[in-house]
Amino acid sequence: MATTKQLSLVEVARALGVDYRGDGSCLLSGIAPLSSAGPGQLSFLANRKYAAALASSEASAVILPPSLADDFQGYCLFSDDPYLMFARASALFDPLERPRAGIHPSAVVMSDDIHPSASIGANCVVETGAVIGEGTVLAPGTVVGADSRIGCNCYLHANVTLYHGVVLGDEVNIHSGTVIGGDGFGFAPSADGWVKIHQLGGVRIGNRVEIGANCCIDRGALDDTVIEDGVIMDDQIMIAHNVVVGAGTAMAGCCQVAGSAVIGKRCTLAGNVGVVGHITICDGVHVTARTMVTRSIKVPGSYSSGTPMMDSGQWRKSAARFSKLDELHRRVVALERQVKNQQQEDG
Amino acid sequence: MATTKQLSLVEVARALGVDYRGDGSCLLSGIAPLSSAGPGQLSFLANRKYAAALASSEASAVILPPSLADDFQGYCLFSDDPYLMFARASALFDPLERPRAGIHPSAVVMSDDIHPSASIGANCVVETGAVIGEGTVLAPGTVVGADSRIGCNCYLHANVTLYHGVVLGDEVNIHSGTVIGGDGFGFAPSADGWVKIHQLGGVRIGNRVEIGANCCIDRGALDDTVIEDGVIMDDQIMIAHNVVVGAGTAMAGCCQVAGSAVIGKRCTLAGNVGVVGHITICDGVHVTARTMVTRSIKVPGSYSSGTPMMDSGQWRKSAARFSKLDELHRRVVALERQVKNQQQEDG
Amino acid sequence: MATTKQLSLVEVARALGVDYRGDGSCLLSGIAPLSSAGPGQLSFLANRKYAAALASSEASAVILPPSLADDFQGYCLFSDDPYLMFARASALFDPLERPRAGIHPSAVVMSDDIHPSASIGANCVVETGAVIGEGTVLAPGTVVGADSRIGCNCYLHANVTLYHGVVLGDEVNIHSGTVIGGDGFGFAPSADGWVKIHQLGGVRIGNRVEIGANCCIDRGALDDTVIEDGVIMDDQIMIAHNVVVGAGTAMAGCCQVAGSAVIGKRCTLAGNVGVVGHITICDGVHVTARTMVTRSIKVPGSYSSGTPMMDSGQWRKSAARFSKLDELHRRVVALERQVKNQQQEDG
Repeated sequence: MATTKQLSLVEVARALGVDYRGDGSCLLSGIAPLSSAGPGQLSFLANRKYAAALASSEASAVILPPSLADDFQGYCLFSDDPYLMFARASALFDPLERPRAGIHPSAVVMSDDIHPSASIGANCVVETGAVIGEGTVLAPGTVVGADSRIGCNCYLHANVTLYHGVVLGDEVNIHSGTVIGGDGFGFAPSADGWVKIHQLGGVRIGNRVEIGANCCIDRGALDDTVIEDGVIMDDQIMIAHNVVVGAGTAMAGCCQVAGSAVIGKRCTLAGNVGVVGHITICDGVHVTARTMVTRSIKVPGSYSSGTPMMDSGQWRKSAARFSKLDELHRRVVALERQVKNQQQEDG
Repeated sequence: MATTKQLSLVEVARALGVDYRGDGSCLLSGIAPLSSAGPGQLSFLANRKYAAALASSEASAVILPPSLADDFQGYCLFSDDPYLMFARASALFDPLERPRAGIHPSAVVMSDDIHPSASIGANCVVETGAVIGEGTVLAPGTVVGADSRIGCNCYLHANVTLYHGVVLGDEVNIHSGTVIGGDGFGFAPSADGWVKIHQLGGVRIGNRVEIGANCCIDRGALDDTVIEDGVIMDDQIMIAHNVVVGAGTAMAGCCQVAGSAVIGKRCTLAGNVGVVGHITICDGVHVTARTMVTRSIKVPGSYSSGTPMMDSGQWRKSAARFSKLDELHRRVVALERQVKNQQQEDG
Repeated sequence: MATTKQLSLVEVARALGVDYRGDGSCLLSGIAPLSSAGPGQLSFLANRKYAAALASSEASAVILPPSLADDFQGYCLFSDDPYLMFARASALFDPLERPRAGIHPSAVVMSDDIHPSASIGANCVVETGAVIGEGTVLAPGTVVGADSRIGCNCYLHANVTLYHGVVLGDEVNIHSGTVIGGDGFGFAPSADGWVKIHQLGGVRIGNRVEIGANCCIDRGALDDTVIEDGVIMDDQIMIAHNVVVGAGTAMAGCCQVAGSAVIGKRCTLAGNVGVVGHITICDGVHVTARTMVTRSIKVPGSYSSGTPMMDSGQWRKSAARFSKLDELHRRVVALERQVKNQQQEDG
């Protein structure tokens, strides 16, 4: 059950491992931005350029760098990275409590390898041979296929589907509606139509991975699809068979990665980036929103595609000209030749 | 159970509140377009430019403007807005009946605040503290998280997931596979990788809202994500944390709205429009299909991005020239200067 | 339960209907690419240009054309279409076994028309009037609405949702999270906001159709949405109401087809193609990844839209010039006129 949590200033300071200024017994019951925080709430200075907001904030306490202590009259928690400390504090105030350990009577569990500290929610189904690790939670309606192995302290939210032969590490969060291990899209053409290539690989997901809602991560054709440690994915992401996503990479909502693409470590893909199949993106690449990555990227940096948003009337004109860009280019080349000839004649 | 419905002409006329011409006892058993409607079916003239189809239609009755009464020989229902009346008539013929009130024995209901007229389907799960209003239907397999509140006469189709702390108004329809209240995508970078920002806000959805299948509406980071009254959304739409969608706005399939974007009232977003985060779109804006809204829109109107579809061979040439558009522009500027110089020399 | 399968060389040869060379009793326990296959594994030569890899492959047996028999020292299976034979062999080694016939005690079945050879998994729901054909499997958590009819030897994976009045042929595979028969997006504007047009059509899906995970196929407004025989669809595809997808067409992940579009037979749509509503695509069309099909296509061929990926800095310049393409065009026209005038004066 969700309930509002209250912590004292000193409790928060200790949990974050930071120094504080003020009455340590002051109770804090939530977090809010500087501008809207009221008494009893904790806030934070995400960016030094907003320091002017400190003076007028009604927050009871603010996480800020020691050098700005004098800019705020209330209680302080000191950190040189207030945004990171805010992230850590957010866990303290999360009202969502881990459900009790044990198997709900309505769950159908065909496996005998469920750790006693795990929580299997109402109407879950865990098929034969599946392994559920210590402290892991399956929320209601989640289905875990045969022989899949889930590590420790994972949280699969309601109505998640894992097919057979999917392996998750520890501390993996998967949001509702996400499907892991569905068949990759492989078919051979024949005179009688498409012949399905049964997908015999699996999916391996590392530790500390977050996967948003309604994502799809397909099983490999022969080898596995791999999501390495520390990857974070937003909602509605589609990962095709045999893709590898490197450790620490972040993908915003609706990204789409085609088969056998390899994405490096610590990349950031903005919303709805598409990656074509069988290419490689090196480590440390940033791709801007809605870009289609059409070739391998070998140099770290930022990459883009697309056209700017315009008034539709203006856009129609530019779009029409785009269709004849090659012709326009040739006309410019012809002009250059003509002008050069004239200059020579004149000279 | 789905069964074909029969209504008499006079029953339909009364339900729509319109006048009619013909035998009021004539039974109608469905709706069809003018061109394919047969005896026993109702049709409608959606657009006056199709009036010529009236003469040959075999529909038993047609909804049309009084001024066109003489163009059709069969029975008539009179309205100056036949399309709207068609929409209302469609409800009369919908074979989908509300299931009986009560809680199916297989449902797992941990809340004691279910209105007796509500229908909780097979294998649903309703967690502690959740409120289900009068006449609301949860179809099979739907999960409602702790402390979520659903108003009256809502219909959540099969396998919908609501997380904890989600609030729906009255007359909200949500289609299957949709996930509301999953975590927004918030992480702080650290030396040890991404640190999750627990999403402490909720989701608030107004009255008379329709949400299609397999959508995601994420919970807010600190404040709520908000969908105002009368919003309609098609399938596979993704709404990130802290977005506000204004009253009466319509979004076609696969739209994607990034965090903290604010969309005005009575906007229409065509299919697969993308909206970047932290921008504002004013009321009454139309955005054409697949446009990426990259900046705030302050003037009502129509907006677009993208390039036209072409034969792939032609397209490759235009695309290659796009990569060098800036160079082409500079060559044109150079030509203009040269030509001007020549003119001056000649003059 | 998933278990590794072992077949002898002669068993595989007979199942594929091909000749072989070697010890027919040799046991094969899986399939792998030429480069990574080890002893006990079967491999295949997908493309003759990789024939050089035959010499060094450690596979126990390889599917290859008879003309290349001398290039490989191990056992052979002979076929002029090794890729197709690989597809057929993949079925032999698929560890996923059809679950036992019968209705799991936790399933809620309100229909009395379930074939005794069908398998209804844990926590499934089958509503009144639904028909489940011979040999069909519903995996756990799947919901089949009233009066829907599913043919023979279909496989609906876990947590699929079929609404009422959906018709599937034989040998249809549907992956998890997919929703078929949700309402099409139809609303009439009124002074009081959007009025829902109840969607009175259904969905008809042919034989031997594959549909990936988290797809949406909406029911028709008045007539049915139709997916013809032999269509294959990847994950996260959205098919709006009254669309027709022609027989044998293949759609890669995340394609989006708007209402009443008609797609021909044997078309191939690459990833995330968008098709606007009310247009027609003829048979045998290929559309490249991320293209938006904005008009009917009457000539078979390949079609594209979009812009190439670039370094973001370079891209910003091209994008800015795109906004003024019409102006650039007019400047070129002006230059052409000036140069022509100068030539005439000079001449």
